[in-house]
Amino acid sequence: MIIDKVNNPIQVGVLGFGGLGQAAARILAPKGEMTWVAVADRKGYAYNGSGLNPDAVIKAYNQGSVAYLEPDGVLSNKSIQDLVENHTVEGYFLALPNLPNTFMADVARQFIKSGWKGVLVDALKRTSAVEQLLELQTDLQAAGITYLTGCGATPGLLTAAAAVAAQSYGQIHSVKITFGVGIANWEAYRATIREDIAHMPEYDVETARAMSDEEVSALLDKTNGIIALENMEHADDIMLELAGICDRDRVTVGGVVDTRNPKKPLSTNVKITGRTFEGKISIHTFTLGDETSMAANVCGPAFGYLKAGIALQRRGMTGLFTAAEIMPQFVK
Amino acid sequence: MIIDKVNNPIQVGVLGFGGLGQAAARILAPKGEMTWVAVADRKGYAYNGSGLNPDAVIKAYNQGSVAYLEPDGVLSNKSIQDLVENHTVEGYFLALPNLPNTFMADVARQFIKSGWKGVLVDALKRTSAVEQLLELQTDLQAAGITYLTGCGATPGLLTAAAAVAAQSYGQIHSVKITFGVGIANWEAYRATIREDIAHMPEYDVETARAMSDEEVSALLDKTNGIIALENMEHADDIMLELAGICDRDRVTVGGVVDTRNPKKPLSTNVKITGRTFEGKISIHTFTLGDETSMAANVCGPAFGYLKAGIALQRRGMTGLFTAAEIMPQFVK
Repeated sequence: MIIDKVNNPIQVGVLGFGGLGQAAARILAPKGEMTWVAVADRKGYAYNGSGLNPDAVIKAYNQGSVAYLEPDGVLSNKSIQDLVENHTVEGYFLALPNLPNTFMADVARQFIKSGWKGVLVDALKRTSAVEQLLELQTDLQAAGITYLTGCGATPGLLTAAAAVAAQSYGQIHSVKITFGVGIANWEAYRATIREDIAHMPEYDVETARAMSDEEVSALLDKTNGIIALENMEHADDIMLELAGICDRDRVTVGGVVDTRNPKKPLSTNVKITGRTFEGKISIHTFTLGDETSMAANVCGPAFGYLKAGIALQRRGMTGLFTAAEIMPQFVK
Repeated sequence: MIIDKVNNPIQVGVLGFGGLGQAAARILAPKGEMTWVAVADRKGYAYNGSGLNPDAVIKAYNQGSVAYLEPDGVLSNKSIQDLVENHTVEGYFLALPNLPNTFMADVARQFIKSGWKGVLVDALKRTSAVEQLLELQTDLQAAGITYLTGCGATPGLLTAAAAVAAQSYGQIHSVKITFGVGIANWEAYRATIREDIAHMPEYDVETARAMSDEEVSALLDKTNGIIALENMEHADDIMLELAGICDRDRVTVGGVVDTRNPKKPLSTNVKITGRTFEGKISIHTFTLGDETSMAANVCGPAFGYLKAGIALQRRGMTGLFTAAEIMPQFVK
């Protein structure tokens, strides 16, 4: 069986410590199979081989940087590089906002250059960002890095569910992802909300990134806190195409984000329409429970893929993989 | 990426040629990535390296055996052994009824003994049948066989969907599978219906197997053609336990089979209830489209796992795997 007995917990790091990074830390805390040993933000990093305490690190971050954590924090303006060079970590979750849109690929190049070997997992959203990583396929492989991309909720959890569901059909007509996100307060997810705004008509990644908090608030006042999105550039399309399931233009992603209410405006779901070998057209539907947060649906899968990536890495399977081709492994 | 470009179609065989075997042949016919080259039933086998024609083989089978296929059929009372010894086939779908309950493990032992190397996929249902295969893990590995078990609908498609869905949660409280099956005419699925009857109170595998067609008809007359099943012995439980997702007693399988109506009496679904890291209890639901038949939901995934198994085999990964730990690959 592919599931290896994990005798020693996997030493895991989290890069980026905004909303997703903090949720990731809380998800890891009760796990026996993984230990959260490293974290980095723009101003520095913290490392403790016996495990970091989420509350203490969040407190330090709120004071300005994880580097303020006593005694494990280190100030650095090249925090990822310094962390990777000085400490052994088997896998990292890249909980970094991909702003600008080339940022994640730049981080991947940094890892390739460093000589580090291990597992990287991202929760990238955009097709064009995954395309940049595809160009690094050979370099990642040569470097001994197992990189799993698109491992959040969408793409990620929902893409994997679509890949499973597709099996009933001879041809896939469409994969339609519709998400609902409810957050009580947009300021807890500043980067994510800016990424969402970047998908709105008249905005792009650069203009959204350049917005001040006041400008974001003013925009949300105009829309009653609602961001409604259609035909988004989401990497579910390229991932399902690479997995041989359907052409990317058959995959659509849209949704509604309510930034003023933790209740979801609609239930997140993916509908897989296809034609069976008998010629019947039908629709499989995978629907997420409304009580599951964006953080749970992004970070849970990310660590499930990180565990699967460790199994690949230990078998010498390196290079780029997507969430649509690997079964995530449950982390206890 | 794990998806290898398939330059030559995979040479695939189907063992057993009842309802599922025949559906498997029809599913394979339009595929470019797989060629259906071999088939066996109790009385013989047929092989053609350029591909078999489903209609011609079904006609021969209806005359008594696939061995009657001209000019590719061969009569044999040890058909699997003779087929395996005389022809090169990369992977087999074992579309055999597991009656008696030790039959599939016996077939696996036959393959181990033969010296054949390749991929085997079954659509086994019972936990106790998968447990027998688990005992063959070391032998399969040593023999160079990649064996994927539980790769039909349930277990299979729904188990894999549950494994994906579980990723949102910290703990899994329950996985509840409820299936609806509608068939116009039970006589097209004699073995499958007997396997279902074996799950009814007061029946077991042996008594169901010993029933004449008249006895099955009489039983179905008493129930108006309905077979209602609860707490079935289904290997989804052991597969999710082996994948580390939850203890097997958290997994339940039940359903309703209408043997007189192709319309499903209810939509087949799996509900995954868990607790997120924030302490919220929620339920993810995966529901199959009513127009998808049992044959589509069993045989489609089986070949998706067979393709995935070929990728494992080519990387030297042999032994026993389950549908809950491998992502099936879409076959074009």
